[in-house]
Amino acid sequence: MASIGVIGSGTWGTALAVLLHGNGHQVVIWSAIPEEIKELKATHAHRNLPEVEIPEAIGFTDDLEEAMEDKDLLVLAVPSVFVRSTAKRMKAYLRPGQVIANVAKGIEEHTLMTLSQIIEQELPEAEVAVLSGPSHAEEVSRGLPTTCVAGAHKKHVAELVQGIFMSQVFRVYTSPDILGIELGSALKNVIALAAGMADGLGYGDNTKAALITRGIAEISRLGIDMGGRLETFAGLTGIGDLIVTCASMHSRNRRAGILIGRGYTMEEAMAEVKMVVEGVYSAKAALALAGKYNVSMPIVEQVNAILFGGMPAREAVSELMLRDKRIENSGLEWEAE
Amino acid sequence: MASIGVIGSGTWGTALAVLLHGNGHQVVIWSAIPEEIKELKATHAHRNLPEVEIPEAIGFTDDLEEAMEDKDLLVLAVPSVFVRSTAKRMKAYLRPGQVIANVAKGIEEHTLMTLSQIIEQELPEAEVAVLSGPSHAEEVSRGLPTTCVAGAHKKHVAELVQGIFMSQVFRVYTSPDILGIELGSALKNVIALAAGMADGLGYGDNTKAALITRGIAEISRLGIDMGGRLETFAGLTGIGDLIVTCASMHSRNRRAGILIGRGYTMEEAMAEVKMVVEGVYSAKAALALAGKYNVSMPIVEQVNAILFGGMPAREAVSELMLRDKRIENSGLEWEAE
Repeated sequence: MASIGVIGSGTWGTALAVLLHGNGHQVVIWSAIPEEIKELKATHAHRNLPEVEIPEAIGFTDDLEEAMEDKDLLVLAVPSVFVRSTAKRMKAYLRPGQVIANVAKGIEEHTLMTLSQIIEQELPEAEVAVLSGPSHAEEVSRGLPTTCVAGAHKKHVAELVQGIFMSQVFRVYTSPDILGIELGSALKNVIALAAGMADGLGYGDNTKAALITRGIAEISRLGIDMGGRLETFAGLTGIGDLIVTCASMHSRNRRAGILIGRGYTMEEAMAEVKMVVEGVYSAKAALALAGKYNVSMPIVEQVNAILFGGMPAREAVSELMLRDKRIENSGLEWEAE
Repeated sequence: MASIGVIGSGTWGTALAVLLHGNGHQVVIWSAIPEEIKELKATHAHRNLPEVEIPEAIGFTDDLEEAMEDKDLLVLAVPSVFVRSTAKRMKAYLRPGQVIANVAKGIEEHTLMTLSQIIEQELPEAEVAVLSGPSHAEEVSRGLPTTCVAGAHKKHVAELVQGIFMSQVFRVYTSPDILGIELGSALKNVIALAAGMADGLGYGDNTKAALITRGIAEISRLGIDMGGRLETFAGLTGIGDLIVTCASMHSRNRRAGILIGRGYTMEEAMAEVKMVVEGVYSAKAALALAGKYNVSMPIVEQVNAILFGGMPAREAVSELMLRDKRIENSGLEWEAE
């Protein structure tokens, strides 16, 4: 049995806390917002996971020291925009070598850093891992079979996370490619927006599969240039996570894309979806990274032109279809003529 | 303008003939069955593509010599089980160096050969290419944006096929990896069966995305050992084609899988779907290839156990979830501890 602090009380943190408790671990959930902790303590329920009863044995606290003290593992589950500020607050209580598994996804807008890079910068004494994969919180909390990948630089750190999370319905693989995992997870939302637009335009399964496949291909090109591995982009945290996002109406990115495909502007779509659409920020970050690393990313370019340049979505699809004739993967060799 | 013979008058051959005619080429469709040719000539319609009017300029013939003579390109679009016998019949009329683009998918049951290998064996003087990708015939015939890959050993052959097929709504990439294209296309149906079973069992998007992603991972392991390339399995003819198959209720493989997930036996599911379920044969071929090349293919093994060994689908999923703890891709390197 391990002792675990879950830092963040959103749906994903809560679903994982319930899973970890079910695996026999001792779990405490922390939130920066005392009212949230009060409500969770009183109701043992999360308002966005209505089907889930949170077991009595799971603790709640708004005291970060209590959440971190003597813990074998810290699960960092705050929204991506709060990762840096939360890491700063954690510095005072961190035990050297303590393992932090980050489960949020994103890229910091101005620095273009991944979340694990931010944590390592703020908490150089921590052992940082990530957990990612095709995993809607609602389905995990209902016990539906789910797979994820635990990434860490060192094998024993990844295996620690794997051992703690793995269960009969939650299968965890390990990987040393943290960077590939994080880039795939963060950038997939740009492609989910594009796939949603194709749906909104009334295109079929052929078009959507093309956008998903060529989308992950361009994310791979960028990610490999940055140091990630093709295997990772072709795996659970790359194409796997993208497939789940593009299949689901739960995805805000896909819903916003559908509205834009139907002719809404980005602002109108954001207003209608009523929540932050992560893909809009990822689109900017992806374009900035494409420029920095000099990688061709035609789908990312067109998504940016639609979001920020007023290009009609239908026209952008035509642009993509009529580009120069290409080789699918320019690295493969032909036979002599 | 090219002169093209389409060998086979099924939905895919017909949809491609209409596309090629739209690209300005001269097209004639051949069928071995005179009644089919008679009906097509009389109605200029295909009974399984009710929305499509076949242009008057497209010719029909049951004379194989007429279909092949003086053609710049032959499109071989017969069902996979008829590829060998059709190739034998074509031998008498083939011009040395004539290009044949095969568009069928499958693996020959007893020889475990791909379709292009069969054509090359029967017609050593032909230049063989393949065309594959996420492309429902119904959507192509309606002009919805679609992408494919033209594979050939020699670049100029792939580029010939690319140049002839490419249009504003049909984007063609080239690739030298014929073997990877054919293995991905043929074996994907096993995974589509498994994904359908997950749907039938009432599992969610997480489970299905896991089966699709880990499914293509094991096909890649086998395919790479056989000489194919990871890039191809991660591309349009691998994961792309699999995504389309798993998303669509048009897929017989997925429909049969759903029924088996609900508790039907293989025989009951086949009877209900009322058509050949290619994945059942591919499952056998994949297992034979896994044995021959000594590759671990846990999903393929479980699908075979369900289809031919009477294992309940729910139990097979548990087996998959509870296998030993694994590294996602065993080829990646860890940092020193």
